Amino acid sequence: MPYIKNKTLISTTKLFKISKLDIEFQNSNSREYEVISGTGNGAVMIIPVTGKSMFFIKEYAAAIDAYALTFPKGGIDKGESIIEAANRELQEEIGYKSSSLEHIHTIDLAPGYIDHKTHIILAKNLSPSKLIGDEPEDLEIIEIPLNDINNFLKKNLYIDSRVLASLYVYGNLIK
Amino acid sequence: MPYIKNKTLISTTKLFKISKLDIEFQNSNSREYEVISGTGNGAVMIIPVTGKSMFFIKEYAAAIDAYALTFPKGGIDKGESIIEAANRELQEEIGYKSSSLEHIHTIDLAPGYIDHKTHIILAKNLSPSKLIGDEPEDLEIIEIPLNDINNFLKKNLYIDSRVLASLYVYGNLIK
Repeated sequence: MPYIKNKTLISTTKLFKISKLDIEFQNSNSREYEVISGTGNGAVMIIPVTGKSMFFIKEYAAAIDAYALTFPKGGIDKGESIIEAANRELQEEIGYKSSSLEHIHTIDLAPGYIDHKTHIILAKNLSPSKLIGDEPEDLEIIEIPLNDINNFLKKNLYIDSRVLASLYVYGNLIK
Repeated sequence: MPYIKNKTLISTTKLFKISKLDIEFQNSNSREYEVISGTGNGAVMIIPVTGKSMFFIKEYAAAIDAYALTFPKGGIDKGESIIEAANRELQEEIGYKSSSLEHIHTIDLAPGYIDHKTHIILAKNLSPSKLIGDEPEDLEIIEIPLNDINNFLKKNLYIDSRVLASLYVYGNLIK
């Protein structure tokens, strides 16, 4: 394994930390890296499915100043399990709870430079249940028939890449 | 659209900028956001395919201090087109060039808080051609038969999430 010779915290904000790493590889080459880590406990992204459809949301994405397509998602609160966080976000963002939540995968966003894990949760057996979250505005909730998802995605210019990764996991890596 | 009332640069490092945004929504609610942007021109990720296999690489991922599975990828140099960057990275990272490079999608990593675009390039018609890049060590190159990719992915603990997003685009959103 490469050896981290030195790690220096070079920036701390409310949400992020940036560190500089001096790394020596086994062939003696050295490189300097900058890496970002979040200050929270990671995030959940939930795939809400019924027998014949899937729920998406459209949410304002501040970093690109546009509305982007995503699944319900959010940070894991302190003391909360992954499954609890998923069921809370479901109720806050689409107004459903689930009696069948399964943690199907954990993805590393871009592990070369961000230490951020998103846990993907498959949510079935949905029933109406609304919790009030901290969203600044009502989210647009979009229910799409399972056989129309690809067409629907093609019509959306901005999609959180984790939606595509989650759908790959859902369609190929489970069962 | 929400209105950005104020944008303040709060941190600048060699690779990243973090800004604080004060945003007012149409319902008059206000929220403060922190967003990250890179200082480069975006990135390319290449899916190298032959008629019967796909090439992956394993690369040290500094943010998680582990080797992670990924496709050839890298930043777009100044003055370089997306396609030129893709063919250069291919030659640097797996020792092949392509005579059929197609830009099939652009993904937004996590647009709620990172303004980072990765252009996905499908590379066919591969032939050996090596360029020397700036990698600190030789990368492990892994050729996997197309019908074994899901099994192979399941055996890897750390995967750049953009590999999964790229494979979804490749399998579902093109053609």
